[in-house]
Amino acid sequence: MKLPERVNIVDVGPRDGFQTEQAFIPTALKIRVIDAISRSGVKKIETTSFVSPKAVPQMADAREVLRGIERHPGVSYTVLVPNRKGAELALEESIDAIRMVVCASETFNRRNVRMSIEESVSECEAVVRLAAPSKIPVEVAIGVSFGCPFEGPTPQDRVSELARTFADMGFHEISIADTVGMANPLQVSSLMGRLVKELATECELSLHIHNTRGLGFANVLAGLAEGIDTYDASIGGLGGCPVTPAATGNIPTEDLVNMCAEMGLETGIDIDAVMAASRIVEEFLGRRLPSHVLLSGTNQQAVAAHRVSASLNE
Amino acid sequence: MKLPERVNIVDVGPRDGFQTEQAFIPTALKIRVIDAISRSGVKKIETTSFVSPKAVPQMADAREVLRGIERHPGVSYTVLVPNRKGAELALEESIDAIRMVVCASETFNRRNVRMSIEESVSECEAVVRLAAPSKIPVEVAIGVSFGCPFEGPTPQDRVSELARTFADMGFHEISIADTVGMANPLQVSSLMGRLVKELATECELSLHIHNTRGLGFANVLAGLAEGIDTYDASIGGLGGCPVTPAATGNIPTEDLVNMCAEMGLETGIDIDAVMAASRIVEEFLGRRLPSHVLLSGTNQQAVAAHRVSASLNE
Repeated sequence: MKLPERVNIVDVGPRDGFQTEQAFIPTALKIRVIDAISRSGVKKIETTSFVSPKAVPQMADAREVLRGIERHPGVSYTVLVPNRKGAELALEESIDAIRMVVCASETFNRRNVRMSIEESVSECEAVVRLAAPSKIPVEVAIGVSFGCPFEGPTPQDRVSELARTFADMGFHEISIADTVGMANPLQVSSLMGRLVKELATECELSLHIHNTRGLGFANVLAGLAEGIDTYDASIGGLGGCPVTPAATGNIPTEDLVNMCAEMGLETGIDIDAVMAASRIVEEFLGRRLPSHVLLSGTNQQAVAAHRVSASLNE
Repeated sequence: MKLPERVNIVDVGPRDGFQTEQAFIPTALKIRVIDAISRSGVKKIETTSFVSPKAVPQMADAREVLRGIERHPGVSYTVLVPNRKGAELALEESIDAIRMVVCASETFNRRNVRMSIEESVSECEAVVRLAAPSKIPVEVAIGVSFGCPFEGPTPQDRVSELARTFADMGFHEISIADTVGMANPLQVSSLMGRLVKELATECELSLHIHNTRGLGFANVLAGLAEGIDTYDASIGGLGGCPVTPAATGNIPTEDLVNMCAEMGLETGIDIDAVMAASRIVEEFLGRRLPSHVLLSGTNQQAVAAHRVSASLNE
C-alpha cells in the first residue's frame, strides 16, 4: 500500500458538528472552541455557515463567530454556503475560502437546500463569479456521493459528471462527501481512483467521510491508497448523522490524527491540543463524544499510563 | 485491492464479550444468546473458556453452557483454555476446537495467565498432545501481536518466531490478536503479509481485531488485502478493552457482516439474525452495545425506512 506522506486534516466540527446540536451553543463558546482548534496545528477549520437562520438556527451567529475568533497565522478559516445569498454575506467577512454544497441525489438535494441539482449547480456558477474579484478560493462538496438514504446507491457517473462541471467552473477543491455514511472501501477506491484520473491535474480532491456504519477509517484507508491526502473530520467526532440523529457522524479528528501518526504519515497536528478542544465541547454538552482515542488515549499514552501503574503496584 | 471472495466470521462474544462483564450473566441467558448466534449463519462460535473460576468468575459455568446449547449442524463450537488443565476439562465435553492463548509480551502474558511465554509455549505443546487422540483441532491466539500496553510496540520477529513454533507443533490455526487495539493498517499489512509467506501453506491464519482506537475496520481491510479471510468479532461489539474497561473491545459482528456485504464478499450470515442476538444482550445489560449498524441499520434498511417515511409525508 502506497500512502501519501503528508495528510491535511480539515476540522469541520464548528460547522458540521455544531449544526446538529439542538440547543443553541453560545457564540463565545463556539469562538473558544475554534480558537482551541487553531492552536492544535489544524491548518483549516470550517468555521460556520451562512444559511437561513430559520433552516439552521445554530448558525445564526455566523458573522459574530467570524469576527470573534483569533486568526492564527497559517490557519485557513472557511465557511459553507448553500447559495449565492450565503456567499454574498460570507464575502462581507474575513474568510479564507467559501464552500458550496450540492448533493448528487435529487431528493437529498431538495431536502437539504430546497433546490433541484440544476438550480444548485447554477448557484455554484454564481458563487464562483461572486468570489472571483476577491480571489478567495471556492470549493464545492458533492454530498451523498456514495449513497443516499432516499435513492440508494449513487451512480458513479453522476458524481463524475458533477465533478467535471465544477472543475470546469473553476472550483479549486472538490470534496467528495459520504454525507450519511453509506460508502464502503471498495466504492471509495473505485470512485476516487476514477476522479483522480479525471480531475487531479485540474483541482484538489478531498474526502468528507462519516462513520455512521463504522467504516469511516476503512474508507479513509481506501482514500489514502488512491492518493487522496485531504480529509474532513470533527473534534471528538462531534455531529450526528443528518438522517439518523443518534448515529455517528463525522470521523473524529483525534482518531484520524492518531491513525496517521501510527502509520508514519505527517499531519503537523498536536493530538493533545485537539483532545483539549474536544473536552471543552464534552464539558459544555455534558456528554461523551464518540472519539475512541479521546477515551482510550493513544498507544503511547496507554503505555505511559501502564508503566506508572505497574511501578506503583510493585 | 484484491480481497478474498468469502470471509469467515467467528463470533467470540460469548467468551471474549461476556468475560469482561462484571455482573454474572445467568447460564440460561448465555445459552439463549449462543443459540441465537447459531441461527444467524455464523459458522464458528467461541462458546466459553475453561479457566480458573477465581480468575474469571463469569466463565465458571463453562460446562453447563456447553451442555445446554443446541448444536446446529455446520456450526463449530469452540472453547478457549489458558493451559493443559483447561484443555483436560474441555476435552471431557463435546467441543469442536480448542484454542490456547499466548501473549507476545512477557509482561502481558504473566498478567494474563501467570506464566512466562516459555511456560505458556510448553503448555501449548501439552495441549496439542492431549487433543491428538480425539482429533479435535487445536488453535492458538498470539495475544498483543501488534502492541502491548506495558511494553509498547511488539517486535514482528517475536510474533513470527512464536507462530513458527506453533505451526511446527501442529496447531491448525494461528490467530494474530490485537488484544488491546494498538495495531494500525500498515502494521497489519506488513505482519500478515510476512506470516502468509512464512506459514500459509502449513496452517490457517486469522485475525482477532479490537476497535479500541477506532481502527478496527481499517485493520480488517488491511488484513483482507493480504488475503486473510477469517476474523473474530463479537455480537454488538460486546466486550470491553482488558486494560481500559470503558473503551471499545472486539469489532462488532454485524458491522463486519455489513462491511463484507457492502463490498460483495460472501459471509453466509443473516445480519438481522445477528442483530437479534445482540438485542437480547442489550436488553439484559440495559445498555447500548457499540455496534454502529445495530443503531443506524444497513444501507438497505436506511433506504427502506426513508422510502416509507417520505411516502407518509407526501
